[in-house]
Amino acid sequence: MAGSGFGKLFRITTWGESHGEAIGAVVDGCPAGLSLCEEDIQKYLDERRPGASEFATPRKESDTVRILSGTFEGKTAGSPISMIIYNQNVRSSDYSDLADKYRPGHADYTYDMKYGFRDWRGGGRSSARETAARVAGGAVALKLLEELGIRIDAYTKSIGPVECSPEKTDLEEASRNSLRMPDREAFEKASEYLKELMKDGDSSGGVIECRISGVPAGLGDPVFDKLSADLAKAVFSIGAVKGFEIGDGFAAARAKGSENNDAFIPSDNGAVTLATNHAGGILGGISDGAEIIFRAAFKPTPSISSEQETVDIEGKPVRISIKGRHDPVIV
Amino acid sequence: MAGSGFGKLFRITTWGESHGEAIGAVVDGCPAGLSLCEEDIQKYLDERRPGASEFATPRKESDTVRILSGTFEGKTAGSPISMIIYNQNVRSSDYSDLADKYRPGHADYTYDMKYGFRDWRGGGRSSARETAARVAGGAVALKLLEELGIRIDAYTKSIGPVECSPEKTDLEEASRNSLRMPDREAFEKASEYLKELMKDGDSSGGVIECRISGVPAGLGDPVFDKLSADLAKAVFSIGAVKGFEIGDGFAAARAKGSENNDAFIPSDNGAVTLATNHAGGILGGISDGAEIIFRAAFKPTPSISSEQETVDIEGKPVRISIKGRHDPVIV
Amino acid sequence: MAGSGFGKLFRITTWGESHGEAIGAVVDGCPAGLSLCEEDIQKYLDERRPGASEFATPRKESDTVRILSGTFEGKTAGSPISMIIYNQNVRSSDYSDLADKYRPGHADYTYDMKYGFRDWRGGGRSSARETAARVAGGAVALKLLEELGIRIDAYTKSIGPVECSPEKTDLEEASRNSLRMPDREAFEKASEYLKELMKDGDSSGGVIECRISGVPAGLGDPVFDKLSADLAKAVFSIGAVKGFEIGDGFAAARAKGSENNDAFIPSDNGAVTLATNHAGGILGGISDGAEIIFRAAFKPTPSISSEQETVDIEGKPVRISIKGRHDPVIV
Amino acid sequence: MAGSGFGKLFRITTWGESHGEAIGAVVDGCPAGLSLCEEDIQKYLDERRPGASEFATPRKESDTVRILSGTFEGKTAGSPISMIIYNQNVRSSDYSDLADKYRPGHADYTYDMKYGFRDWRGGGRSSARETAARVAGGAVALKLLEELGIRIDAYTKSIGPVECSPEKTDLEEASRNSLRMPDREAFEKASEYLKELMKDGDSSGGVIECRISGVPAGLGDPVFDKLSADLAKAVFSIGAVKGFEIGDGFAAARAKGSENNDAFIPSDNGAVTLATNHAGGILGGISDGAEIIFRAAFKPTPSISSEQETVDIEGKPVRISIKGRHDPVIV
Repeated sequence: MAGSGFGKLFRITTWGESHGEAIGAVVDGCPAGLSLCEEDIQKYLDERRPGASEFATPRKESDTVRILSGTFEGKTAGSPISMIIYNQNVRSSDYSDLADKYRPGHADYTYDMKYGFRDWRGGGRSSARETAARVAGGAVALKLLEELGIRIDAYTKSIGPVECSPEKTDLEEASRNSLRMPDREAFEKASEYLKELMKDGDSSGGVIECRISGVPAGLGDPVFDKLSADLAKAVFSIGAVKGFEIGDGFAAARAKGSENNDAFIPSDNGAVTLATNHAGGILGGISDGAEIIFRAAFKPTPSISSEQETVDIEGKPVRISIKGRHDPVIV
Repeated sequence: MAGSGFGKLFRITTWGESHGEAIGAVVDGCPAGLSLCEEDIQKYLDERRPGASEFATPRKESDTVRILSGTFEGKTAGSPISMIIYNQNVRSSDYSDLADKYRPGHADYTYDMKYGFRDWRGGGRSSARETAARVAGGAVALKLLEELGIRIDAYTKSIGPVECSPEKTDLEEASRNSLRMPDREAFEKASEYLKELMKDGDSSGGVIECRISGVPAGLGDPVFDKLSADLAKAVFSIGAVKGFEIGDGFAAARAKGSENNDAFIPSDNGAVTLATNHAGGILGGISDGAEIIFRAAFKPTPSISSEQETVDIEGKPVRISIKGRHDPVIV
Repeated sequence: MAGSGFGKLFRITTWGESHGEAIGAVVDGCPAGLSLCEEDIQKYLDERRPGASEFATPRKESDTVRILSGTFEGKTAGSPISMIIYNQNVRSSDYSDLADKYRPGHADYTYDMKYGFRDWRGGGRSSARETAARVAGGAVALKLLEELGIRIDAYTKSIGPVECSPEKTDLEEASRNSLRMPDREAFEKASEYLKELMKDGDSSGGVIECRISGVPAGLGDPVFDKLSADLAKAVFSIGAVKGFEIGDGFAAARAKGSENNDAFIPSDNGAVTLATNHAGGILGGISDGAEIIFRAAFKPTPSISSEQETVDIEGKPVRISIKGRHDPVIV
Repeated sequence: MAGSGFGKLFRITTWGESHGEAIGAVVDGCPAGLSLCEEDIQKYLDERRPGASEFATPRKESDTVRILSGTFEGKTAGSPISMIIYNQNVRSSDYSDLADKYRPGHADYTYDMKYGFRDWRGGGRSSARETAARVAGGAVALKLLEELGIRIDAYTKSIGPVECSPEKTDLEEASRNSLRMPDREAFEKASEYLKELMKDGDSSGGVIECRISGVPAGLGDPVFDKLSADLAKAVFSIGAVKGFEIGDGFAAARAKGSENNDAFIPSDNGAVTLATNHAGGILGGISDGAEIIFRAAFKPTPSISSEQETVDIEGKPVRISIKGRHDPVIV
C-alpha cells in the first residue's frame, strides 16, 4: 500500500534506499511564486549530514541536493518540485554478514514479514537515511512557512538521564554545541555520558523539543484531523520515535483542572491571549495563537557494537555484534 | 475542510453536535458478510454512557443506537453502515449564560477564531459527546477485528498522582470498578483523590493504557503511514489527549540501547518471537507479532465549578464558574 | 473498500439502500456561515421525486429531508451536515421472485460476485434511489456555489433518436415540460416515442447536457486532478452513465485544429475572453472563464417488462419479466 | 493543491517540465517481489518516443529511463520506485517568442490565471511530455497486471473522419503501421488525410479504443468509486481528451432497453457469461467478467503552423504562427 507520501494539499513523497543509487523527494502542491533555490535546501542537509558532529557516524556523504523540476527563473511554478540526492558512500559489503540475521531493534524482521524479503544494505528503505529526503521536502515547507511569518525551532531536550533545565533554554547555545542542547551545563554532562556509552559500544535515547511561533489562532480541523493529531502522526512517522506530547503532555495527566486550564486574558492590542500555556498552543485540535510546543521521545540507537542475541532468517538463534562506528544517540 | 472522517479502506465519518437533534456515524468499507446487529453496538454505548459511574455526569441519555443501512438479514452487505443516536436530554438553556464567554481549556475560543461563530450549546461539535458516534463506529471495527482473532483491552493506568502497579494488571478488576482500574488498591486511592477534588469543584487528568493482542507480524506501512503513526493520530484525535507513547515510550528516551533492544528468540512453534517487549509490538512502523501496548495522557476535565478568569467574545475580562456537576476525570 | 464518499475539501458521503429504513448524506467540509434550511434541499428533492412526471414510476415517496446536524441558528456551523430521508414505500415482496435471478443490465450479478450476496430488495444499494441522497448533498453544494455567483443548468439533450436542436435551447421550456427538454418540438416527438416504447414494455436511453456559468478562469489542477477529470469521474459515478464529453467532445475528434482551436480575444472590460467555445470552458484541465459545457449519455432503463433471457444464482437459464411500471427513460 | 498523483493503494506521482532538467515518476504501493528492470519500462518509452513515426515530431530524445529506487536484486522491494528520464533536447529559445502570447487551444492562459506566471518553454508542465513519466509509471502497473493475467490493448479507432471498421480489428496490423490503426484500409485513408493536413499546417483529432481482457468479475466499488468512474477520471486526466465512453457509450443513449441489455447465459465451465457486451464489461460500476472496452476522443493538436488570432499577456490582440514541425494528430 502506498505509504510514502504525507499531506493532502501540500504533499511530500519520499523515495530511496540507504544504499541504492539515490534518494529524493517530490513536493506536490507548493504554491507558485515562492523563491526557491538549491541553497535553501542544502543548508538544512548540511546540518543533518552524518559526520557533522563528533557524536555522529563518519559516513562520508556530500549529500548534494539537485532540484530537477518545479521552479522557473528562481521561483516555484506550482508544479511538483522533484529533488534528488545521489548516494555516494555505498559499500554494501559492510552489511553482507547481516543479510540473513535480524538486528534487534531494527525493522529487518518486520520488513521480511511484510514483504517476504528486504534490501539488507544499510537498512534499505528503513534506514534513517530516508530522513534526508524529508529534510529536503521539509526545507521547501519551511521556506513557505517563513514567508507566512511562522518560525520553527527544535533542539535536544534530554539525552538519557541528562535533561536541559527549562529555565535555561538558550537557542544560541543549542546552535553552538554538537548535541544541539540549549543548556551548556546539560550539554557537558550529556557529552560525558555519551562518551562513556561509546566506550561500552552502547547507545542512548533522548527527547527533542520543538517550538513553533507565529501560528495564527484558528488553524486545524476539529475531530479526526486535529492539528495535534496531524502533528502526532507526522512526528511518529519518524523512525525511532516512541512518544509524543503537546504542551504539558503526560504531566497534564497528573495535574488538576484548576492548575492545567490556561486563563484567557485581553492582550494589549485588543486581541485575546493566554496567561499560561499548559495546552501547548492547541485547544480542541485548533491552534489558539500561543506558541505550539511539543516533544518527541526517541529510543536509543538500536545499532550497538556489544554482542546481542537474535535469530537468523531460518529462525535459528545466533549472536551478532554490529561492526563499524554508530551514532550513540539519534536525537 | 473535511476532517470528520478517518481511514482509507475502512472509513468512519462522525457527525452531530452535543445539543443537536442527533449524532451518528457512517462506516464505509466494512466487508460484506459480518454478523452485525444493534446489540453489538449498544453494549459499548451502555458502557460509555454518562451516568454509568458515580464519577460521571448524571446526564440522562438512553443513547439508543439504530442501524439505518448497510446490513441485510443480520449481516453487513458491503455498503455504508449508517448509525444514529437521537439526543434526548438537550436543555440548551443550561449553557446560555456561557454563550458569550470563552471557557478556559475548552475549544470555544478556537472555534470562534476558525468559524466566526459556534454552536455554544454544550460544546456543540467539540463536545465529548462526539465520541459516542466514534464508539458506534468503533464497535463495528471491533466486531470485525474479533473475527480476525484480534483482542483489544483498555483500562485506566493512572488518575492524577495515583498509578496502577504494573505487576497488578487484573483486567477482571478493571471491569468491576467504576474507574476501570486494574489494580484494586490504586482504585481505592484514586476514588479518595477524586472525591476530594469534587468537593473543591476541581478535576484530575489521567492515563489510559491499551493492549492489542493477536496482531500478526507485518502490518503497517513503513515511512509516513507507520502503524505507530496511524495509532498516534487516531488517539490524538480524541479530545483532551495531550500525550501518546508506545511500548516504553518516554522511558525509552532515558534508556540505553543494550537495555531497550528486544532480543529475537525462536518460539516453540518454529516462528520468531521476542524475549522482551520494550518496543510495544511495533518495529519500523510495522507490527512485530508481540502485544501492541500504548498509553494516552488525558488532561484534567476543563469544566470545573471553581471560579475562573477568562474573557468574553468582545475580549473583555470576566470571571465564570461552570454550573452543574461535571466529570472529575475524563479517562 | 470505502467508496461512498466524494471530494477532498468538500466531501459528500451517501448511505442507504432502496428498501432499507432510510437513506442519507453527510456533507463534511462546508464552510461556516452559509444560510441553510431544509427547504433549500427539499425543493430539489421535490423535482427529482418519482411520481413527478407522467413518464416516471408512481412510487409514492414523500421524500422529506431532515437536517440532523451542522447548522446553528439557520447557518452552517462548519461541522458535518447530516441529512436523512426515511423510506416509506418499501414493499420488498414486489421483488422477492427476483431474489435469486440476475436482471440483465442491473448490478445484481456484479454485486454477488463482489460481496457474495446482496440486498435484492429494489436494487438495494445499487438502486437509483441512492441519487436522492446525492441530491440532498448536492443541494448544499449548489447553495454554496450560488453564493459564489456560479449557476448550473441541466436539461435533456436527447431521448433515443430524438434530439433537441442546438438553436432551440430554451431553459424556460425545459422547466415547463415533463421531460425537461429545452425544445418544444423535440419534447413532443420524444413523448410520442416514449409512449410507443411503454406500450411494448421497452425503454430508451438519452443524453443530458449541463452548462455551468460564472466559473472564474484558473480553477482545477493540471495533470491528474484536472477539472475535466474530476467532472468525468463525478458524472460517471451516476448509475447508467456510459459516456461523457466536454465541449465538442467526440465531434472534436473528427475536427481539424484550425476549426477546433478557440481564439483568445480582448473583452470589453480589458480581460481576455474566447471567440468560440469548442473546448467547453476547460483548457489543460483548468477553467478558462468560458461557460463549462458537458454531456452525459445514459443507457436505457434496464428494467423492462418484456420477457428477457437470464440465469439464476445457480447459473441455470431462466426467463424473467420485470413486473410493475418502470420509468421508460432515466434522464 | 497537490494534483500530480493518482491512485490510493498503487499511486503514481509524476513530475517534470518539458524543458526542465528531467522528468520522472514515483510509483508507491507496488507489491514486493515483482520482477522489474529498466528494459521493462524502456520498451514502452521507445514506442511512445517522438520521432518513432513519420507523423510524429522529430524531437530527438533518447528518453532513457533509469530506476533509482524500489528494486533489489531485480525485484520490486515494496518501497517507492523512482524513475527518471533526463531531458536532452531542450532548446528553449524556440519558444521565446511565444513567452508573452497565449497559444489557442493550449493551457498558457489558464496556467497564467491559476499560477500568475508559467514556464513557457515548450508548454512546461502542461506539455504532452509529462505523459512520458506516466508511461514509465504505467509500465510498472502493466507488468503487475500481466502477472495477474490481465491484458490491455489500445489502438487508434479513428482519425478525423476516417474510422476503422469494427469488423476489421486486427491488432497485428495496428502494431505494424505508424498510426496504430487495426484496419489497413483505414490506415491508408488516414495517412492521405494527414498528409493533406500537414501541407496546410493543420492537424486532426482522433479516437483511441482500449480493450482490457482477463479482468475477473467483482472489481470496482459501487457509488462514487465505480470502476467506470475511475477509468473516466484516469483517461480524462490525459491532455487533449474531450470525450470518454464505455461499451456502446453515446450509442446506448439512442438505443432501446431491449437492445441494450446484455443477457446472462451459462458458460461452458458452469460460470455465468454474457451473450453480448453492450455494457463494455462494467455493470453498476463493477466488472462483470466480460472484456472492458472504452474509447477516448482526442481533440486535434492545437499547435498548428497556420496563422492564428490570439492575445498577449497584456490582453492585446496579436497573430501567431507556431513554428517548427508539429504532430498532425495526438492519438
